[in-house]
Amino acid sequence: MMTTALKQRSLLGLKDLDAAEIESILDRAAYWEGQAEKLTPVLQGKFVANMFFENSTRTRFSFEMAEKRLGAEVMNFAAAASSVEKGESIYDTVRTLESMGIDAGVIRLKPIGMLAEIASKVKVPLINAGDGNNEHPTQALLDLFTMRKHFGHLKGLSVSIIGDILHSRVARSNLWALRKLGADVKFCAPAEMQAPELDAPYISMDEAVKADVVMMLRVQLERHATGMMKSAALYRESYGLTVERAERMQSNAIIMHPAPVNRDVEIDSDLVEHEKSRIFPQMANGVPIRMAVMERAMS
Amino acid sequence: MMTTALKQRSLLGLKDLDAAEIESILDRAAYWEGQAEKLTPVLQGKFVANMFFENSTRTRFSFEMAEKRLGAEVMNFAAAASSVEKGESIYDTVRTLESMGIDAGVIRLKPIGMLAEIASKVKVPLINAGDGNNEHPTQALLDLFTMRKHFGHLKGLSVSIIGDILHSRVARSNLWALRKLGADVKFCAPAEMQAPELDAPYISMDEAVKADVVMMLRVQLERHATGMMKSAALYRESYGLTVERAERMQSNAIIMHPAPVNRDVEIDSDLVEHEKSRIFPQMANGVPIRMAVMERAMS
Amino acid sequence: MMTTALKQRSLLGLKDLDAAEIESILDRAAYWEGQAEKLTPVLQGKFVANMFFENSTRTRFSFEMAEKRLGAEVMNFAAAASSVEKGESIYDTVRTLESMGIDAGVIRLKPIGMLAEIASKVKVPLINAGDGNNEHPTQALLDLFTMRKHFGHLKGLSVSIIGDILHSRVARSNLWALRKLGADVKFCAPAEMQAPELDAPYISMDEAVKADVVMMLRVQLERHATGMMKSAALYRESYGLTVERAERMQSNAIIMHPAPVNRDVEIDSDLVEHEKSRIFPQMANGVPIRMAVMERAMS
Repeated sequence: MMTTALKQRSLLGLKDLDAAEIESILDRAAYWEGQAEKLTPVLQGKFVANMFFENSTRTRFSFEMAEKRLGAEVMNFAAAASSVEKGESIYDTVRTLESMGIDAGVIRLKPIGMLAEIASKVKVPLINAGDGNNEHPTQALLDLFTMRKHFGHLKGLSVSIIGDILHSRVARSNLWALRKLGADVKFCAPAEMQAPELDAPYISMDEAVKADVVMMLRVQLERHATGMMKSAALYRESYGLTVERAERMQSNAIIMHPAPVNRDVEIDSDLVEHEKSRIFPQMANGVPIRMAVMERAMS
Repeated sequence: MMTTALKQRSLLGLKDLDAAEIESILDRAAYWEGQAEKLTPVLQGKFVANMFFENSTRTRFSFEMAEKRLGAEVMNFAAAASSVEKGESIYDTVRTLESMGIDAGVIRLKPIGMLAEIASKVKVPLINAGDGNNEHPTQALLDLFTMRKHFGHLKGLSVSIIGDILHSRVARSNLWALRKLGADVKFCAPAEMQAPELDAPYISMDEAVKADVVMMLRVQLERHATGMMKSAALYRESYGLTVERAERMQSNAIIMHPAPVNRDVEIDSDLVEHEKSRIFPQMANGVPIRMAVMERAMS
Repeated sequence: MMTTALKQRSLLGLKDLDAAEIESILDRAAYWEGQAEKLTPVLQGKFVANMFFENSTRTRFSFEMAEKRLGAEVMNFAAAASSVEKGESIYDTVRTLESMGIDAGVIRLKPIGMLAEIASKVKVPLINAGDGNNEHPTQALLDLFTMRKHFGHLKGLSVSIIGDILHSRVARSNLWALRKLGADVKFCAPAEMQAPELDAPYISMDEAVKADVVMMLRVQLERHATGMMKSAALYRESYGLTVERAERMQSNAIIMHPAPVNRDVEIDSDLVEHEKSRIFPQMANGVPIRMAVMERAMS
């Protein structure tokens, strides 16, 4: 049964969502995960546009699967990188698709702050599929869902997020959501990948691997051409989750990664499908999470 | 009820369509616009290929929405720019998709004259989604629909089409269709953007803004590297619909634009969602128009 | 009624399929070809991912049509050429889509040998839509289907495959499948396009055109920059199916080509839709073949 908290609305980020709302989405995802039937047409006759102004096969695919499992009509749109620069055209495109009668829009875009501005101007619910280094709420929701499935609760969990915090929307959405639910989040990153505006402690790699959840971030080495980030091998040595480091994890701890992984850079290849790893389960969990989010947006 | 005029057929352009046929499409679009249900599966089991040999997110999206609202199965195809040059491969692609059993094809392509040739060789109905600078019939139909909704009629309306007439299929399709319906079309363009082969008078910008319909065209400045077209600011000054010029429009007149707009080039940003503007309503109207056209092609 | 041979399984190639299995697919394709209804939702609620790590409009379109005719939900994925190089990311992508809950994956990729490795690691059935120069089983199946439709049988047919055997997965899949069904396959190719590891005789062009089936391969001249392959005209002169050569074909013989054709290189333009040509019928036959293959994978 739908609670009032599941009424039609956008999902721009988790920073401004309260704990009860987050939990209601996780609960609804658990409901969808438990359905034996793949197709439940609760959104039949609804039209969703997946608008990716920044490319992402995995995230688009996961949304598309969720939308189709709910019986929605799905239209995909991937903008050429070149047309992304002009901020105004993103707004015009969203307004255009709204005019054409879509019932909800999933949107990924680069410019920070633009999503909130667009959402304030259109009437159709918008779901943030990643905006710059600001938020990626459905990724964090599926991460929370994955942790809750394994540990049974989130309160009191220690979570280490390791890597390029500065450029990571995943780190931000997770930080904000996990704290609301009572988890203890700590970061681990080289100085040039730290985000000073985020109020969370930085710990050493040795400490970080002792958490309940060891969440690795994808490192984009091309962004860090100088200093210690020069080589993948150096990064791995200092901040990668190696097999050796994984052996020092707690017995019940889990490894997470938003994917796609750079094998043998931030995480050793042998760990990707390790028994501690929840990397592919995270992707599986993304579908019921996005079903809950899309249903919430349009029901 | 479908009239005999709505029998299965292609829509290559409006130049050769008579007034009654155009009006029957507009009437049918009004019918579809009035439907409360988004999904009416009159084309269930029909397969449509949207073949875009020239890219266009908006037009493809609008067709896809129309096709899906009618219950058709939709397959999208966007050709790499590189493969567009070889005329023969466009024909081979259309024949291929026809062989695979599509029931209709929506096609956008660059080479002028090719569409008619292809249509003469295949048995499947083809809908022109824009061919070179020749025709863009569904755009003109939605423009007529938009005008008729506002004014209640087309006969006697004065319509100014302003901008790059030379390269505009929108101008051509509108000119031919509007005349058949009794509207009075005038062009306004700098010398290098005029199309001497089109039999329509050119007027000054001061005159043009006094029409019932002020239709701005997208200017593609990259096409006009020399002379007065050198800068967007210069173009705006001479041929842009500025806020100041819009103030001199008639009280009941409307602003139109096929989109996407170059804000503050051919039209001031503040006018895009002005009360006189029908730019986003035009996009909304595109869906019922294309529903009428696709239904006509396949029913 | 489905035979036990039509149980759920992958289709990686024809080399390891026995004759009875191949014939059961051809028979099932004939069944689907005979259906008057375009939509038969035997795969309703099933999700298929078309994963093209190498681009192919025609093949993807044909699979999509087949999948949709069976009522499956279809998700398309085309990887940028740049991301194809890293073998591991292909595996990770397939595993990702598997995690998200697809019921089958159609996959085209370049690296040889990778498909079998991936298939051994995932639980979802995989259909080979072309892997490097190794196999293209659905293409060969539709070729066999096309021959069987024309001649009524495959046993004893003489088949000439002409062109770039070295780089052709079509030649390999056809060779292996046709032999199992009792046809006599011979190759015709310039020395630098021959595949010494394939155990089939090479014959002259004069002999080759006398076969029951004259199958031309697409030549990719850019691969052969030197020697006699320098120019399309030279290739045509030596190994092209010219109008003059076609006149020397047997009265009941047919012309085949996997498409897309290079008109007036490996085949004269006038022959593409010649009465002897089965080029467009081949594409038509691809749909029921792929229906049979997708049904076999998921039923």
